[in-house]
Amino acid sequence: MSLIVTKFGGTSLATPERVLGVAQRLVDYHQAGHQVVAVVSAMGKSTDDLLRLANSVNPNPPARELDQLMATGEMVSMSIVAMAVEALGVQAVSMTGRQAGIVTTEVFNKAKIAEIQADRILSELASGHIVIVAGFQGITRTGDITTLGRGGSDTTAVALAAGVGADVCEIYTDVDGVYTCDPRMVPAARKLDAISYEEMLELAAAGAGVLQMRSVEFARNYGVVIHCRSAFNDNPGTLVKEASAMEQAIVSGIAFDKSESKVTIRDVPDRVGIAAEVFGAIAAANINIDMIVQNISEGGSTDISFTVPAGELARLRPVLDSAIANLGIREYLVDESIAKISVVGAGMRSNPGVAARMFKTLADNNVNIGMISTSAIRISVVIDGAQIETALAALHTAFGLDSDNLFEETQLSGEELAAKAAKGR
Amino acid sequence: MSLIVTKFGGTSLATPERVLGVAQRLVDYHQAGHQVVAVVSAMGKSTDDLLRLANSVNPNPPARELDQLMATGEMVSMSIVAMAVEALGVQAVSMTGRQAGIVTTEVFNKAKIAEIQADRILSELASGHIVIVAGFQGITRTGDITTLGRGGSDTTAVALAAGVGADVCEIYTDVDGVYTCDPRMVPAARKLDAISYEEMLELAAAGAGVLQMRSVEFARNYGVVIHCRSAFNDNPGTLVKEASAMEQAIVSGIAFDKSESKVTIRDVPDRVGIAAEVFGAIAAANINIDMIVQNISEGGSTDISFTVPAGELARLRPVLDSAIANLGIREYLVDESIAKISVVGAGMRSNPGVAARMFKTLADNNVNIGMISTSAIRISVVIDGAQIETALAALHTAFGLDSDNLFEETQLSGEELAAKAAKGR
Repeated sequence: MSLIVTKFGGTSLATPERVLGVAQRLVDYHQAGHQVVAVVSAMGKSTDDLLRLANSVNPNPPARELDQLMATGEMVSMSIVAMAVEALGVQAVSMTGRQAGIVTTEVFNKAKIAEIQADRILSELASGHIVIVAGFQGITRTGDITTLGRGGSDTTAVALAAGVGADVCEIYTDVDGVYTCDPRMVPAARKLDAISYEEMLELAAAGAGVLQMRSVEFARNYGVVIHCRSAFNDNPGTLVKEASAMEQAIVSGIAFDKSESKVTIRDVPDRVGIAAEVFGAIAAANINIDMIVQNISEGGSTDISFTVPAGELARLRPVLDSAIANLGIREYLVDESIAKISVVGAGMRSNPGVAARMFKTLADNNVNIGMISTSAIRISVVIDGAQIETALAALHTAFGLDSDNLFEETQLSGEELAAKAAKGR
Repeated sequence: MSLIVTKFGGTSLATPERVLGVAQRLVDYHQAGHQVVAVVSAMGKSTDDLLRLANSVNPNPPARELDQLMATGEMVSMSIVAMAVEALGVQAVSMTGRQAGIVTTEVFNKAKIAEIQADRILSELASGHIVIVAGFQGITRTGDITTLGRGGSDTTAVALAAGVGADVCEIYTDVDGVYTCDPRMVPAARKLDAISYEEMLELAAAGAGVLQMRSVEFARNYGVVIHCRSAFNDNPGTLVKEASAMEQAIVSGIAFDKSESKVTIRDVPDRVGIAAEVFGAIAAANINIDMIVQNISEGGSTDISFTVPAGELARLRPVLDSAIANLGIREYLVDESIAKISVVGAGMRSNPGVAARMFKTLADNNVNIGMISTSAIRISVVIDGAQIETALAALHTAFGLDSDNLFEETQLSGEELAAKAAKGR
C-alpha cells in the first residue's frame, strides 16, 4: 500500500466526462489498496471567467478580494470531483485550503506555503476516504484566504506530498511526461523516464512548460519524488527526483523559447557604472530581462545585448530612450526574430566539451550564434528564429537524444535502463 | 450613527451594473456615517448552474459535497461586491460564513444557525470597513461548510443583525415591501408601512412570498426589526416588528395560493381511527398536506377533504388508492381548479365578526366557499380558482385595504399614521 498524492489540471477537468475519468483513476488506486489525495485546479477556463467578472466591477481589484474570489474556482472542482468519486461508489471528502490545513504567508495573490497541518487529511485517509483538496489556495494564520500564484496547484500537491509523507506526487497534465525536446518541434524527441530536480529546474527556466519551477524547487527541498504523466492515458511518465552523481546524462534535454526579443545597445562608453545605470532604469520599470552579454568593441566602447520578453518591448522602449539619451549613447537595435535554445544536462559538470560540440553542430548546419550564456549544467544560445527547427534537430541528434539512437551517446542511469527495458517488454 | 445589516438577493446582483448599484447604496450608508454589513446571495442564476454541474457528475450528490459546492456561489458574490465597493473608494472586507463566525448545526443542506461569533465583523466595522458576508452558509464546529436551506440568506442577515446588535436588518428584494395583497391580482393593493411578526408569518405561510418564514421566526425570537424594501428604488418599504396589542389592524393583508388541489374522500365510515389510518399512509409517503376539513355527512359516514400541492398529486393517488381499498371506502374526488384565500390580521383576536364579514362578502359576490380553516389571526377559505380575482378584490375592499379608502375601516397605529403622513409630504 502506498500513499499517493495526485494533481489534476484544469484541462483534465474541463467536462463532466473528464471529471468522471479522473474519479475513475482515483477509485482504481483506492481499490488497488492505496491511500489517495487528489489536488485539483479550477475546471477548464473558469479562472478566466472569474477574472473577467472581477474586472467588470473593478479594473484593479484589491488583492485580498481577488484571492477570496479566485479560490472559489478550485472549490467548485474539489466538490465536483468528490461527487464524481461518490458516484462511482467510494466515499470522498473535499477540502478547501483551510480544511486541508494549508497555512501560507500573508502575501495575497502569491502566498508561499508556510506549514501543512495534515491531521484532518490523515484521519480521513485512515477512515478509507479519498481526499480531494482545492489546489492553488491556502489560509493565513488570521483566517484570510490566499492563493499561491501561477502554477500554484502543482505546489499544493508537492507540499501536501511532503506534509503527509507520500510515496510519490503524481502530476497529471495534458502531455505524457518530460521530453528531450518538444515533440511538436523535434519529431524524434523521446520521453525521459527520469530527470533530476536541477535539470528540470533549468529546463523549466529555459522555456520547457511541463512543470512549474516553484513546485520543482519545493520537491527538491523536501525530497518529494514527482511523477509527471498524462491524464489521458496510462503510459508511465517522467520521474523527477534526486539523481546521484554517478547516474547523470551529459545532456538530458533541449529547451527553447521563441517569446523573447534581443536588444543591443551600441557603442556604450567603456566606463564604470554605465551598465548599472542602464539596467537600473530597466529594473525600476519592473521589466524582467534574461540573458545579458557584453561584447568587446573597438575604440574604448562596447556593445551590450540582452533578451527581454517580446511583450515587454513597448514598455521598454521609452525607458531605454531616456536612459541612453542621459548617457550620450547613440542607438540601440531590437531584433524581434530570435530564438533561444538551451541544452541541459547534469553530466556537463564532469564532461567537458559539451559547449564545443554544441557550437560545432550549429556551425556545421550554418546556424549563426548571436549570444551565449551558461550555467553549471546548461548552455544557452540565441540564434535567428527562422533556424530554430534546423538547430533543434541537429542538436537533438548530436547529443544522442533521438529515440532511435538512444544508447549511442548518452549515459543512461541503471534505473533508467531498467525502466527502458521494462517498457520494451 | 446606526449599525445596519442589509441583505441583497440574487436578482439585485445579476449584472455588473446592479452590483455597482448595490455597492453605491452601501457606500452612501457609509458616507452618511453608518456602519454597514451586507449579506449577499449568489448572483443571478448561478446557484442553478452549480446544481446542474453537480448533477452532471452525480444525480444524487452527497449532502456534504453539495454544501461545499453551493457555498461558492455566495463566495463569488461577496468578493465581487467588495471589489465594487472598493472601486467606489471605500474599503471593504468580504467574509465567508466561516470568516463571519456563523456556526451552524451539523445538518448539511438545511443547517440551523447555532451561534454567531461576531468578533471579526465588529473589529472590521470598527476599522471603518464595509463588511460583505456570504449568505446562506455557515460552518460546523468541526470545520465543514454547511448551507441553511431555502431562503437562507435572509436568515443569515437576521441572525447577523441579532449577533452584532444592529439597529435594523434591511432585506432588499425586487418588490417595494409587503403589500395588502399581490398588486398583480389586486391593483388597489397598497404597501404596508409596518406589520407584526406573527402576521407576516401567517401571510408567508398562506402563500405571500416576500420574506422567508424562517428569517421572520428568527427575527421574532431575537427582536430584530426587518425593513423589507426594493433594491431598485429608494422608497421606504415595510417594517416587520413586534406590534403592541393596541396597534393592531383588524386585517393587515390577504394572501392566496393557487398551487394546491383539493381532495375529498367520500363516505368515510364514521369510526375511530379511520382518519389516522388515511393520513398516516399519506405522511409515510412524505407528502405534505395543508387544510384538513371533515364534513358531517348523512347515515353514519362523513366526507374528509384536504388540500395538497398539485405537484404531489401523482405521488398521492397510488397511496390513496391502496388506503381506501383497505378501508372499504368507495371513492375520492380531486378538484385541481381551486384557490385558497387567507385573510390575516392580529386585530382579529379582539374584533369578532371578521369571519362573518368575509363569508358575507364572498356570498354577495356569488363566490362559493368549499373549505374553511382558521387560526387566531387568520381565516382561510378554499374557493373555485376561476373566481380568485373577484374574491380578492371584494375582500380587499370589504376590509378597507384599498389604497383610496385607507382610513375608513382599518385601525392604523399611531406610528403607521405618522409614516403615512410623512409619505404624503
